[in-house]
Amino acid sequence: MADLLDEIQLRYACRAFVEDQPVTLVDVALLLEAGRLAPSAFGLEPWRFVVVDDSQRAAVIRACGDQPAATTSAALIAIVALVDALDPDSDYVRDRLLAEARDGEVAPIAQAYRAFYDPTVIKAWAIGQCHFAAAHMLLQAAHMELGSCPIGGFDPVALAAALDLPADETPALVIAFGRCAYPAPPRRRKLD
Amino acid sequence: MADLLDEIQLRYACRAFVEDQPVTLVDVALLLEAGRLAPSAFGLEPWRFVVVDDSQRAAVIRACGDQPAATTSAALIAIVALVDALDPDSDYVRDRLLAEARDGEVAPIAQAYRAFYDPTVIKAWAIGQCHFAAAHMLLQAAHMELGSCPIGGFDPVALAAALDLPADETPALVIAFGRCAYPAPPRRRKLD
Repeated sequence: MADLLDEIQLRYACRAFVEDQPVTLVDVALLLEAGRLAPSAFGLEPWRFVVVDDSQRAAVIRACGDQPAATTSAALIAIVALVDALDPDSDYVRDRLLAEARDGEVAPIAQAYRAFYDPTVIKAWAIGQCHFAAAHMLLQAAHMELGSCPIGGFDPVALAAALDLPADETPALVIAFGRCAYPAPPRRRKLD
Repeated sequence: MADLLDEIQLRYACRAFVEDQPVTLVDVALLLEAGRLAPSAFGLEPWRFVVVDDSQRAAVIRACGDQPAATTSAALIAIVALVDALDPDSDYVRDRLLAEARDGEVAPIAQAYRAFYDPTVIKAWAIGQCHFAAAHMLLQAAHMELGSCPIGGFDPVALAAALDLPADETPALVIAFGRCAYPAPPRRRKLD
């Protein structure tokens, strides 16, 4: 492979996409696969990916404040954080920790997770973990010459309603994808 | 480049490294560069990367509960979230938003950020953003055939003391790097 940093350099936040340039189903599948392979603490994968469908799109865009990245996007994927499922006594956690233990003992992992788990911060923690999956999707998009824009500035109640989320899940990020309408702007990173 | 998904597949959480296999200064520089190029909302880059030095290492490892990934690591990088700096009226935010605006108007971005900013959740938010930088470093490590392990289970007060952080910063993650002592275990991801 060429240098990964060259790939990383390809990514930038695209605020406006070329309309009528659809993202293919294969592209969407590869974006989801990149997200699925993201790291997560305790192997909990505390996320769900929602490919926004036509019936949800208008309400999702509205929940994102009608920002151009959303309105002009060819595809929107919401990354949703699991919350209640992360209770140490849930079936979900039991299954994930068994997977994490592979053929070893699950008890030490379960004990470590129980000590780590704090219900007062678990929602924020799960949202943080969702950024691992988002970073993978953003790089995968750049690799496929697709533009992308992570959107964190949304109305969470409206977005949860638009996505018909159960009460035990919370939206973490929406990512807009498409053919970017402009080339990469110059980078202006801080120096220290 | 080969498929990015092949690169993504190379990454796994390594819990034990081969000792006496140092990570070179060039490797560390490339890890930091990958993190530096991570996305962040409003271009705020709300992070600082601390390469743990010999004088800090023992205390950092202790703050990480003496877990083997830390004790056997060849290098540790702490990703620290900026908190007070994110106040909309700070010099830091002014400089970053000017950079984000590039040669356009900064006022709409500043207004959007002021509407977005919530001091009660900004710390958790900044920690979440730090996961973007972490994901980049983890992939860069895999690309360089280095093992890595993100460590989120630490004592934040002890870690902040070990890193001599100012009161307006908070540790987000520690990442351990080195030559992994074992090959990639089988993946056991959830299916839905």
